[in-house]
Amino acid sequence: MAQALVLERQNELAIRDIDIPDAMGPDDVRIRIHTVGICGSDVHFYTHGKIGPFVVKAPMVLGHEASGTVVEVGANVRHLAPGDRVCMEPGIPDKLSRASRLGMYNVDPAVRFWATPPVHGCLTPFVVHPAAFTFKLPDNVSYAEGAMVEPFAVGVQACYKAGFRPGDRAAVIGAGPIGLVTALAALGSGASSVLVSDVAAPKLAIAAKIPGVIPVNVREEKLRDRVSAECGADWGVDVVFEASGHPTAYDDALAALRPGGTLVLVGMPPDKVAFDIVSAQAKEIRIETVFRYANVYDRAISMMASGRIDLSPLLTESFPFSESIEAFDRAVSARPTDVKLQIRMPE
Amino acid sequence: MAQALVLERQNELAIRDIDIPDAMGPDDVRIRIHTVGICGSDVHFYTHGKIGPFVVKAPMVLGHEASGTVVEVGANVRHLAPGDRVCMEPGIPDKLSRASRLGMYNVDPAVRFWATPPVHGCLTPFVVHPAAFTFKLPDNVSYAEGAMVEPFAVGVQACYKAGFRPGDRAAVIGAGPIGLVTALAALGSGASSVLVSDVAAPKLAIAAKIPGVIPVNVREEKLRDRVSAECGADWGVDVVFEASGHPTAYDDALAALRPGGTLVLVGMPPDKVAFDIVSAQAKEIRIETVFRYANVYDRAISMMASGRIDLSPLLTESFPFSESIEAFDRAVSARPTDVKLQIRMPE
Amino acid sequence: MAQALVLERQNELAIRDIDIPDAMGPDDVRIRIHTVGICGSDVHFYTHGKIGPFVVKAPMVLGHEASGTVVEVGANVRHLAPGDRVCMEPGIPDKLSRASRLGMYNVDPAVRFWATPPVHGCLTPFVVHPAAFTFKLPDNVSYAEGAMVEPFAVGVQACYKAGFRPGDRAAVIGAGPIGLVTALAALGSGASSVLVSDVAAPKLAIAAKIPGVIPVNVREEKLRDRVSAECGADWGVDVVFEASGHPTAYDDALAALRPGGTLVLVGMPPDKVAFDIVSAQAKEIRIETVFRYANVYDRAISMMASGRIDLSPLLTESFPFSESIEAFDRAVSARPTDVKLQIRMPE
Amino acid sequence: MAQALVLERQNELAIRDIDIPDAMGPDDVRIRIHTVGICGSDVHFYTHGKIGPFVVKAPMVLGHEASGTVVEVGANVRHLAPGDRVCMEPGIPDKLSRASRLGMYNVDPAVRFWATPPVHGCLTPFVVHPAAFTFKLPDNVSYAEGAMVEPFAVGVQACYKAGFRPGDRAAVIGAGPIGLVTALAALGSGASSVLVSDVAAPKLAIAAKIPGVIPVNVREEKLRDRVSAECGADWGVDVVFEASGHPTAYDDALAALRPGGTLVLVGMPPDKVAFDIVSAQAKEIRIETVFRYANVYDRAISMMASGRIDLSPLLTESFPFSESIEAFDRAVSARPTDVKLQIRMPE
Repeated sequence: MAQALVLERQNELAIRDIDIPDAMGPDDVRIRIHTVGICGSDVHFYTHGKIGPFVVKAPMVLGHEASGTVVEVGANVRHLAPGDRVCMEPGIPDKLSRASRLGMYNVDPAVRFWATPPVHGCLTPFVVHPAAFTFKLPDNVSYAEGAMVEPFAVGVQACYKAGFRPGDRAAVIGAGPIGLVTALAALGSGASSVLVSDVAAPKLAIAAKIPGVIPVNVREEKLRDRVSAECGADWGVDVVFEASGHPTAYDDALAALRPGGTLVLVGMPPDKVAFDIVSAQAKEIRIETVFRYANVYDRAISMMASGRIDLSPLLTESFPFSESIEAFDRAVSARPTDVKLQIRMPE
Repeated sequence: MAQALVLERQNELAIRDIDIPDAMGPDDVRIRIHTVGICGSDVHFYTHGKIGPFVVKAPMVLGHEASGTVVEVGANVRHLAPGDRVCMEPGIPDKLSRASRLGMYNVDPAVRFWATPPVHGCLTPFVVHPAAFTFKLPDNVSYAEGAMVEPFAVGVQACYKAGFRPGDRAAVIGAGPIGLVTALAALGSGASSVLVSDVAAPKLAIAAKIPGVIPVNVREEKLRDRVSAECGADWGVDVVFEASGHPTAYDDALAALRPGGTLVLVGMPPDKVAFDIVSAQAKEIRIETVFRYANVYDRAISMMASGRIDLSPLLTESFPFSESIEAFDRAVSARPTDVKLQIRMPE
Repeated sequence: MAQALVLERQNELAIRDIDIPDAMGPDDVRIRIHTVGICGSDVHFYTHGKIGPFVVKAPMVLGHEASGTVVEVGANVRHLAPGDRVCMEPGIPDKLSRASRLGMYNVDPAVRFWATPPVHGCLTPFVVHPAAFTFKLPDNVSYAEGAMVEPFAVGVQACYKAGFRPGDRAAVIGAGPIGLVTALAALGSGASSVLVSDVAAPKLAIAAKIPGVIPVNVREEKLRDRVSAECGADWGVDVVFEASGHPTAYDDALAALRPGGTLVLVGMPPDKVAFDIVSAQAKEIRIETVFRYANVYDRAISMMASGRIDLSPLLTESFPFSESIEAFDRAVSARPTDVKLQIRMPE
Repeated sequence: MAQALVLERQNELAIRDIDIPDAMGPDDVRIRIHTVGICGSDVHFYTHGKIGPFVVKAPMVLGHEASGTVVEVGANVRHLAPGDRVCMEPGIPDKLSRASRLGMYNVDPAVRFWATPPVHGCLTPFVVHPAAFTFKLPDNVSYAEGAMVEPFAVGVQACYKAGFRPGDRAAVIGAGPIGLVTALAALGSGASSVLVSDVAAPKLAIAAKIPGVIPVNVREEKLRDRVSAECGADWGVDVVFEASGHPTAYDDALAALRPGGTLVLVGMPPDKVAFDIVSAQAKEIRIETVFRYANVYDRAISMMASGRIDLSPLLTESFPFSESIEAFDRAVSARPTDVKLQIRMPE
């Protein structure tokens, strides 16, 4: 039995004791959780009780963006030791599956992902996790930043799949948390400039704090017009990251791209979108899609440790574990300036 | 002045004399046209007078799928000589444009393409063409096949962009001319099997004549069911080529793909399509788009010359130039078994 | 205890009983071995007692190119059932290693490979093997062909890494077993023509039996001259596969390539080779290296099942298990026309 | 007739009047030269009278790393106007060649390159150049930096071909001018860290001024040992750039790489090198080669304009045109702290 933040059912949270499996295998480590970020999916399970086919049918511990400290290691574990500061990939695939053997374990249908029914999350003092999905944090990466590796990894995956090339210019549509981590990842992947577009001025104000970001308020100017000012009227950006899921964003994305450019679909629209295939063909663009991430945690951590990626503008506020429910309610009624709320476990 | 098949205006064709520029530059060749295929775009200009932004405002010679014989070469031309049997790329780009310098001359906006207003086509006895876009035919490739290089090149471009890998399994949606050349190109690119789906039994009967093609009548069985029979219920084909432009094809395509698979958009739907981005993301698929072709004519010809690609099931019927208008009228009311109609110039 | 072909020490083989671990795990299958091919590495262990760092220090069962029939499946196994005809990947990686997570399990240093000291091979009536590395054979692939999947997979890996594109022309240097499987794989991957060069006329005679192969006897003509005849004096082949390991082959390879072409290093030279880096740079070629294979068994099998790859010219002779030692001695003094010798286990 | 720095023959320079073609075509611009960097190849022509097959048989103007100001534009030129500050690609390919059509104009054998016999260079007050190979400099890029785009472009090409991925770790072997521009380009392409190795402490001291560079004096420690400290003993860097051409560098490069890593060959060794193919295969590494650059000038300029690439540590000293010969003699007896010497034309 361990204390945890439990989603009892839609709209009902409790901090209470709950049974969580804690047996260690030889390839596992036990981790004392330090910080856990609140993700939009956690909030969605809270307010809707489900995401697509994943329905909360039994009480479930929330949280999947975590950092902590190793307290015990299994017999086979070589690269970690008690005391190591770490962060964890929240999805554990079947290592023998066809997708895993190909290196695409993120699209293995059997993946077990923290805080995705029926799998418990990590808003609890201790977790047992495979060492292979636990990553040591360098000294210059804080626990708060360590808990940001998970969302940042989505941006890194987007840039990895974009196939960034030196000097590429990029545009990110949407200045929400995923748009911002994608913009940061693009800058860290060598983008020479990154336009970030949104309709919300407060979000753009946060984006503007990131060196190299050019904010574009699409209430005031068209993204294409700003692209023309940067790249010339007959050319466009090399990569567009769609990170809003908004139905009108896809036309804007196609208009912003250069011939032969790349569109990366990160945002998840609630419904099918009307997509202009002929316009995409006229520029012979490539489209990549992103589903979480695979094999990028070490990359994300190296980028953060290099000192050239600064996630601090995204770290809005931190709450003690005892105020977890208040933190979630704050996330539900998110202020436009809220990017990432985090919860600190008691030491 | 030269005799030609002239589209006077929408719905009006004439065989008559017309002025066509015929000055030779030092990098040009003069070609006696032998065979010209009728393409859907030729027919569309005939019946609608326009395609998208391209409007027939003045009489225009039709035809862009051609083979012939070199009769004269410019001073700088080294790789061709009078008497050579050849076929021609119908689009001439601006060689100094940004897209051309990158090797993507097909998406150069300044490209001049035969039988696309205001540029005359090649249904006329002689044309002058840049030698760099004129390709020698091997002895074992006939003039009729040489005039098929143009549509076949679209299929080759689709396979090139698919990034085919040894043993890939493919599905082609749509058994029209473009679907069939794509299926042939996929087989020639190493596909270990190619499903071809359509609703029209006569078209599927032609597809079935191609060794390696598995026809799927989607009136009778779902493409996904057939894919499951071939690839297993939890996997899918490596590549889907959408070659129908039909609005329901896109869901079928996503369902048929394996995780990490590739969708190549060859067909051009008349309107925007409702596209299921979240389903694409769940498999993290890549999407490539195709606009004509670039740098694949030599590849297409090598594939045909290798003897492992047999285009003969697609060569429906050939008409003498004097019956060009009848040939176009036959194409307008195409029979389900018509794939490619061609016109032979007088010798 | 089970009967097996045991390499007691350098130069000493015995057919005798030996202890081989045969415990089944839930993800394993038990296979009755049918056919095992003799590989150059088996012969090298026999004649030299070692290959590089791998030294035979204790009696070891030989053989790693195998096909057979499933006789028992573990509790978790879904895709196989008793009675299935199968072939097996002989290398079992650590599924949690960094290389394995990236999909490159072939370069995992912890891989355990059949008949590589101290791991026993498969020249014994039954083996226990992970189901994930056991592949069902289609009905039209024989046991003899199934035992060829292992060497053929090396050729498929070479073509996979080459990044074959539609219509590519290739040259293979060396007409030994690896050169021949590479040539077959290249043809199955869409090569429009494949030159195969060697100094031994009997080997070239076998190569010439493969449709699409152009044999080049480099005692009689230079490879570059033949390339010029095929591709033009100012161009070259798109891909060269070096499959001889001979020190002079590398200059020939560079000379044969076109600007921007790809050199795939399959052959393993016994020493460092003198490599002309400046010539490689002048054409800005890409070089890929091959170490065994990963994730290509299903591809190799599909290619064989497609009927377009015919391995029969490579199947030289088959011996009963009781004559295994004679088979190995025949392999030691290989005739120039010997490509692959195989051993049949008693039924 | 125009004044120029003329290489009369080996070892003899003169500042004198010489005839240089200056006719403008419709696609050309005329440029007043501002700054020209001295490259190792200029110095080599001065001291040796030839480089490989390129022999100085007649007086030739030196210089190919240039920036300047547009003073006249041809009739077809749209993207440049008199007064624009620019830099120029020194190589002009045949735009119709097979390599150019593929986008690889750098490996077109017909390319005409400044200061490569018999083509004059740009150490003269005015040059006529194709607008397509003339690039506008942003306001925040100085003329001195503009003249560095040429050598920097080599580093950008190396990173482009490396296929850099987010967070990649890199090592550069050799801290000469090409090693330093490659290190800068790697950092600008998203490398999370860059080791730079050399035997010369003064060169490493300059490398150490670049934020993100970790200097490694291979007189004092092995590159592999430093890699192990950074990446772990069982892994390695993702990319090694060989920029020394030294015969022992290739073993160091292979030892430093991770399984599946990439070796980029930038340095040009004077002779063939002994290359360990089997070690490269054991890690299944990819090798890319670099010949000058193609299509990266705009990328290089964007990277410099982004403010995240600082070339100033490489700008050693600038000389007036009247002291050109002294500048070349200084370059001949280069001090270990000399990276780039430049010449300013009179205004």
